Amino acid sequence: MADKPHVLIVGAGAIGSFYGAILKRAGCRVSVVLRSEYDAVHANGFSISSPLGDLSYRPDHVYRDGDTPEQTADYVICCVKVLPTVDRAALLEPWVGEGTRIVLIENGINIEPAVADAFPNNPLISCLAFIAVSRMEPGVIEHKAFGQLTFGAWPQGISDDCRALETLLVEGGIKVQLAEQVVAERWRKSLWNTPFNPLSVLAGGADTVTMLDTPGGEALVRAMMAEVKAVAAADGHPLPDDAIDKNIAGTRKMSAYKNSMALDYLAGRPMEIEAILGNVVAMAQRLEVSVPRLETMQVTLAMRERLKADAPA
Amino acid sequence: MADKPHVLIVGAGAIGSFYGAILKRAGCRVSVVLRSEYDAVHANGFSISSPLGDLSYRPDHVYRDGDTPEQTADYVICCVKVLPTVDRAALLEPWVGEGTRIVLIENGINIEPAVADAFPNNPLISCLAFIAVSRMEPGVIEHKAFGQLTFGAWPQGISDDCRALETLLVEGGIKVQLAEQVVAERWRKSLWNTPFNPLSVLAGGADTVTMLDTPGGEALVRAMMAEVKAVAAADGHPLPDDAIDKNIAGTRKMSAYKNSMALDYLAGRPMEIEAILGNVVAMAQRLEVSVPRLETMQVTLAMRERLKADAPA
Repeated sequence: MADKPHVLIVGAGAIGSFYGAILKRAGCRVSVVLRSEYDAVHANGFSISSPLGDLSYRPDHVYRDGDTPEQTADYVICCVKVLPTVDRAALLEPWVGEGTRIVLIENGINIEPAVADAFPNNPLISCLAFIAVSRMEPGVIEHKAFGQLTFGAWPQGISDDCRALETLLVEGGIKVQLAEQVVAERWRKSLWNTPFNPLSVLAGGADTVTMLDTPGGEALVRAMMAEVKAVAAADGHPLPDDAIDKNIAGTRKMSAYKNSMALDYLAGRPMEIEAILGNVVAMAQRLEVSVPRLETMQVTLAMRERLKADAPA
Repeated sequence: MADKPHVLIVGAGAIGSFYGAILKRAGCRVSVVLRSEYDAVHANGFSISSPLGDLSYRPDHVYRDGDTPEQTADYVICCVKVLPTVDRAALLEPWVGEGTRIVLIENGINIEPAVADAFPNNPLISCLAFIAVSRMEPGVIEHKAFGQLTFGAWPQGISDDCRALETLLVEGGIKVQLAEQVVAERWRKSLWNTPFNPLSVLAGGADTVTMLDTPGGEALVRAMMAEVKAVAAADGHPLPDDAIDKNIAGTRKMSAYKNSMALDYLAGRPMEIEAILGNVVAMAQRLEVSVPRLETMQVTLAMRERLKADAPA
């Protein structure tokens, strides 16, 4: 590409609009596809405060979900929540052309196949965001800390596409870590998220300190982490022996922290239960790994969702 | 006793006042000790509708918790909720004299020692109530169905005291089943209560149909029942091989049912988590039986309680 590439962000919430800003700073053309926040962003662009400076920008094009695009993009970045009710492949389809690289910045385990199967000829880059960023109101984002992206080609390897994206992101001002085995990186993050996120929901929106300081709490979290670790190993991605100790110690060092699923729960928003927990349990069942604690959480949360769905509106 | 015995009910809620009515019909003197509902019952007695007829009665004496009794009782019947915050032995102490039989009509596993240890010289009768009864307002009770009491001397045997109490209860109009091994009967009831009650709370107040019909729900309940069964066996009270199948089949035959802990949860009342679940998990740990699913529920519920306790009022 002689010209700077054209980037399209699908699902430009807090995370998507932040990375859009980074790529904008790197000189890319950055367009976005929005649903409920179209009007605000179309009128005013994004207002983004950040330790990196003022990252506010006006996208080159603001599309409404369902619009016909003027052209397909060089990079389509998918930041949509991974929910059983959302067909991400269908959301991406209008914007993906020949040669478009699809970039997933999303949480969870085994979230790539639904997209990869729909676009078998497009390169797929799978990313994990380590970032503290919040949407304050439509189009208004507060970036608080961090921002590193860890990524690699899916299912593995570091492609030229990865290196090109790395160059842009570093130019834009964030740290990047390329991963030969991005699935291993997902397992590494899952070791924390898969126990803590659903547990915080079942515990009524509890923070990390409440969970760890309840009698039996740390032991339960450790036992759940050991279940995740066993599934990761069976999936071909063994985690280091001291991974659990380090995760617990790291969490103890933080002040009381409410994870994103706890916040979604408390705000009544949909939760990424399948991506974070359900897919791990499904893989455990396929690989015949015993995960009684994770199963207990998964089924109990499914009961809650069913109860909610059955409730009169 | 030439005269009809003097019965004192401690904790005369729906269940306590119902069995008081039965013993009143058998000609006993029935007094009650009340806390918050003293005024209503002192003024108007109990109004109890029932398939057995109108069971309304005025207790011979209505004591306020903390009163000095005129005399100790022949039977002190304890129907107090089993909660870590409630010292049942202290509540019973003023009313128990030499020879007073202590009768527990309460749910849970291993709930007798706290009382037995405080009154080592008094006979202790341990009862399980199979009854559908609700308190509608202070002193107003609706008995809907059943009413059978299963009981025996604790820790085991069928004493003359048991037979004497049986005679009174049958005279009063209910069915009684004497149990040589009352602890085994508690395990039998625990097989249902220990999985279903806490699970319904974690599932947000779900009923039996919601729980069993959620994908993976029946399998989870069965796995939890198997954990209870293993602890019962290690405690010397093996349950029949087909106990789980029968419990599931029986539950499937019922219409959607919200258990007492689910109702307590939805109403914001204290829940008997320790009696129903915590004591089973503690016993499993002592007997080195693996109960990962029950532990997950117990610790998660403890986290909820801690979160609630920490919350600003």
